[in-house]
Amino acid sequence: MTESQFLIPLWADLTAVGLGGVQGALFASGFVGQRRLDLLGVAIIGIVMGLGGGMIRDLLLNTTPVALQSNWYLLTVTGAALVGMLLAGVFHRLNAVIVALDAVAIGMFGALGTTKALALGLPAIPALFVGVCAAVGGGLLRDVFMGLPVAMMHVGSLYAIAAAGGCAVLVTLDIVGVEAVPAAIACIAVTAVIRVLAVAFDISLPEQRALYRRKVAVETSTIPIIKP
Amino acid sequence: MTESQFLIPLWADLTAVGLGGVQGALFASGFVGQRRLDLLGVAIIGIVMGLGGGMIRDLLLNTTPVALQSNWYLLTVTGAALVGMLLAGVFHRLNAVIVALDAVAIGMFGALGTTKALALGLPAIPALFVGVCAAVGGGLLRDVFMGLPVAMMHVGSLYAIAAAGGCAVLVTLDIVGVEAVPAAIACIAVTAVIRVLAVAFDISLPEQRALYRRKVAVETSTIPIIKP
Amino acid sequence: MTESQFLIPLWADLTAVGLGGVQGALFASGFVGQRRLDLLGVAIIGIVMGLGGGMIRDLLLNTTPVALQSNWYLLTVTGAALVGMLLAGVFHRLNAVIVALDAVAIGMFGALGTTKALALGLPAIPALFVGVCAAVGGGLLRDVFMGLPVAMMHVGSLYAIAAAGGCAVLVTLDIVGVEAVPAAIACIAVTAVIRVLAVAFDISLPEQRALYRRKVAVETSTIPIIKP
Repeated sequence: MTESQFLIPLWADLTAVGLGGVQGALFASGFVGQRRLDLLGVAIIGIVMGLGGGMIRDLLLNTTPVALQSNWYLLTVTGAALVGMLLAGVFHRLNAVIVALDAVAIGMFGALGTTKALALGLPAIPALFVGVCAAVGGGLLRDVFMGLPVAMMHVGSLYAIAAAGGCAVLVTLDIVGVEAVPAAIACIAVTAVIRVLAVAFDISLPEQRALYRRKVAVETSTIPIIKP
Repeated sequence: MTESQFLIPLWADLTAVGLGGVQGALFASGFVGQRRLDLLGVAIIGIVMGLGGGMIRDLLLNTTPVALQSNWYLLTVTGAALVGMLLAGVFHRLNAVIVALDAVAIGMFGALGTTKALALGLPAIPALFVGVCAAVGGGLLRDVFMGLPVAMMHVGSLYAIAAAGGCAVLVTLDIVGVEAVPAAIACIAVTAVIRVLAVAFDISLPEQRALYRRKVAVETSTIPIIKP
Repeated sequence: MTESQFLIPLWADLTAVGLGGVQGALFASGFVGQRRLDLLGVAIIGIVMGLGGGMIRDLLLNTTPVALQSNWYLLTVTGAALVGMLLAGVFHRLNAVIVALDAVAIGMFGALGTTKALALGLPAIPALFVGVCAAVGGGLLRDVFMGLPVAMMHVGSLYAIAAAGGCAVLVTLDIVGVEAVPAAIACIAVTAVIRVLAVAFDISLPEQRALYRRKVAVETSTIPIIKP
């Protein structure tokens, strides 16, 4: 862990945590009123989005969550959540800002997770898995806490695929001997680009065609259907 | 961990676990029939409320859950859940009993969590965070298991704030050199009083006014509404 | 952990992981279309069902998840999930296959969890608890990820009881000195038989009678009730 703390500078970790916190509070602010989320609820979602991914990463790696080893993480994420709450009125209709922030945050969490896993000696595929869990974990916890359908499970905007693509690039670059910093930057860039393009062009994975078509037919048709 | 086990006597831990177990079963009994929860489901919720907070605390602290190191925890919580199930018929309308039990249980989990975190050398703010997670973790897991909206996220009765207040008192007393036992008692008292007063006087945090008003306006169209 | 890795051969672990992966993907395929789960969502549910129980087991035991220590686990579970997706069209109406696979998978996860807990020196009751958590954990995570009511909480088919019965047999056999392999086989057999019989004969636990009857009476009454 000393090794990984050496590899990952505090400012990089805190930047990801802060981005996640702002993003979470911006997201949650949209639900105040509708779902009767209160100010505290918005702050909690900011904290969950900022710290959740890193905590899941550290639980999987069986290390004490780094966010609990100094006061800075919780101070940063709480401050970031407050900023997100204050800016919500300004940015709320600028959906593009939220998407962009989110894309960069996912990329950073993925890069930090994969790098830490590799630094602790995990093989390539588990390291990639830890990176993806770190990237999508905050959003997963957010959805569970808010009682929303888990976003990454549904037809949508290649949330987990973007993270997996970036982390795969990082692992590959690590194998061929590229240094940690440029590899992490490549990971963030690839993740953010896939994610932003997916949202911009509304790309999604295909559903399982046969099953889907049968279901839709059954649900929408008034004509009796002979089933196999 | 030897140190923290020295600091936290088994009877204190088991009392909190037992209170949580009774409280969880009382709560879950109210949903039998409605949500088709069976006897086993009620028992599981009792166990989750009794052990969930401590398990989350120990996962965050990266120690083996203390509840798995002797047979007593699981025996106590299971027995407590059975007591809660048997008493549900008697106490079900005495909502005050459930609120009071809950307030004391939250206070105890918060005190035990913060104390253990401080004993393991965590800084003040992370120790407070671990205490709050230990206090609200059981209820959070309960809500997720039961498919309910997560209680602490919604406009309500200062659930997490009560825990945070108590744990902040404990951390402050620890910094100024007060011994563990009186500090823990102060934590429990502050938490329980805030929580009970919040329920009694129906106090809640403000929502984000601007956003809320805009939403309500949009949703209810142009007809003026007189609010209580 | 070296000890437990000696006790549990890799092929046994990978068989359970593979069964879980196939089963998860079969289950999730039924929801494509209805809940707009995409191909990736189905694969994620397969991975969650295959690895979730073992991960929860290892988190509770405070060991690094064994699934992250070699590439094989993630390769196996991903392959199994793909097989489950391809076979879904064939097996979807053969509900018996899904039930049988599920029963054996639960038994294996319970046996592996209890054995590992005993090998790490946990007392009997916590070892049983870890086994049950390993057995039902994958299904629990699946339901949370899919936004479904948690299956084991509701009146149904003795899901957790089947796992507890099998794990209790294993712990008892361990206490009386039976070797690990026959004890594990007995655990799997007992779990699978209870589970399959419960589904076949639609056995469930009683609900809390008194409460249930009162609620139904209130809900179905034709007399208007004035609520406070």
